Amino acid sequence: MQALKNRIIREGRILPGNIIKVDGFLNHQVDTRFLGELADEFARRFDLSGVTKILTAEASGIALAAICSYRYGVPMIFAKKAKSDNIEGGLYQSEIFSYTYRKKTTLICSMERLTAEDKVLIIDDFLANGQAIRGLVDIVKQAGAELLGIGIAVEKGFQHGGDGLREDGYHVESLAIIEQADENGFVFR
Amino acid sequence: MQALKNRIIREGRILPGNIIKVDGFLNHQVDTRFLGELADEFARRFDLSGVTKILTAEASGIALAAICSYRYGVPMIFAKKAKSDNIEGGLYQSEIFSYTYRKKTTLICSMERLTAEDKVLIIDDFLANGQAIRGLVDIVKQAGAELLGIGIAVEKGFQHGGDGLREDGYHVESLAIIEQADENGFVFR
Repeated sequence: MQALKNRIIREGRILPGNIIKVDGFLNHQVDTRFLGELADEFARRFDLSGVTKILTAEASGIALAAICSYRYGVPMIFAKKAKSDNIEGGLYQSEIFSYTYRKKTTLICSMERLTAEDKVLIIDDFLANGQAIRGLVDIVKQAGAELLGIGIAVEKGFQHGGDGLREDGYHVESLAIIEQADENGFVFR
Repeated sequence: MQALKNRIIREGRILPGNIIKVDGFLNHQVDTRFLGELADEFARRFDLSGVTKILTAEASGIALAAICSYRYGVPMIFAKKAKSDNIEGGLYQSEIFSYTYRKKTTLICSMERLTAEDKVLIIDDFLANGQAIRGLVDIVKQAGAELLGIGIAVEKGFQHGGDGLREDGYHVESLAIIEQADENGFVFR
């Protein structure tokens, strides 16, 4: 999606360790009207007929998922991050490793909120190693729900989490895939 | 706001320790169209002319703040929770104590994103002891920005955080104030 690429080029910053900061419009300050355009682009790329739930993980995916949910007229769920030793009953759980924070966390989702009747679109702001998305996919599977696809705003193509998911047969749509981010700027796939 | 009170009566659950669960529409599964109605009610209760930013704290305030931001056409910012030993430069910081998680966290917000030019509406899903809101107010003050008000979906009136903020002169609007939540159900102020 050219509008997103343009925005990344204009406002994104590259920090040491391939950290890409887009905190002016996506994941700290959030331009929610622009997220509405991203939501509409997902609606063009996925067959959303019959979608019943938007699923994301806290915290930075919530804004984009909320706007998608609002525009599609279906509820969203955000899986919460819990310490492994503090899990209640009645929850789907999936343990993931966060490379950003260098620790294991467990994504949890209430069994009441996601069932075999649901058709789910997973939405997240970033896809890098794919750990968080794998956790969400795992939760959808535990629920026996149907996964319509995985919509991502910014994919770090050079970390190959998205490639792995596509190889496994998932329909992943990333609106901007960054192949390279260094002192020479951004290169998109 | 009667529609919110009705929804709490219909779908809310009361757990031991005065924990109020509204995770079917507010802070796990989220009915974003309903949040649009809450956003419109805030717009009736506050003078939002000139508002430039919606400010909330991660994670559960993000969905409501995002919908407010979308409907008002101004950006939102979510203050992030950081460990106190992991703070970068260029950030407003405010240390808060979370009674829910029984630990100190530091709310952080980039100095680039909030300045003395801003007119800010603080939005959050819950107000109990008021610690998180006090942290956000502190960040607005550090920025030298103007605080237009504090909009809350559900206030736990029996924990008095909202009363303290009102006594200190802040314009707090809570769409449902729960005075009592026990085996006899909900009593609203």
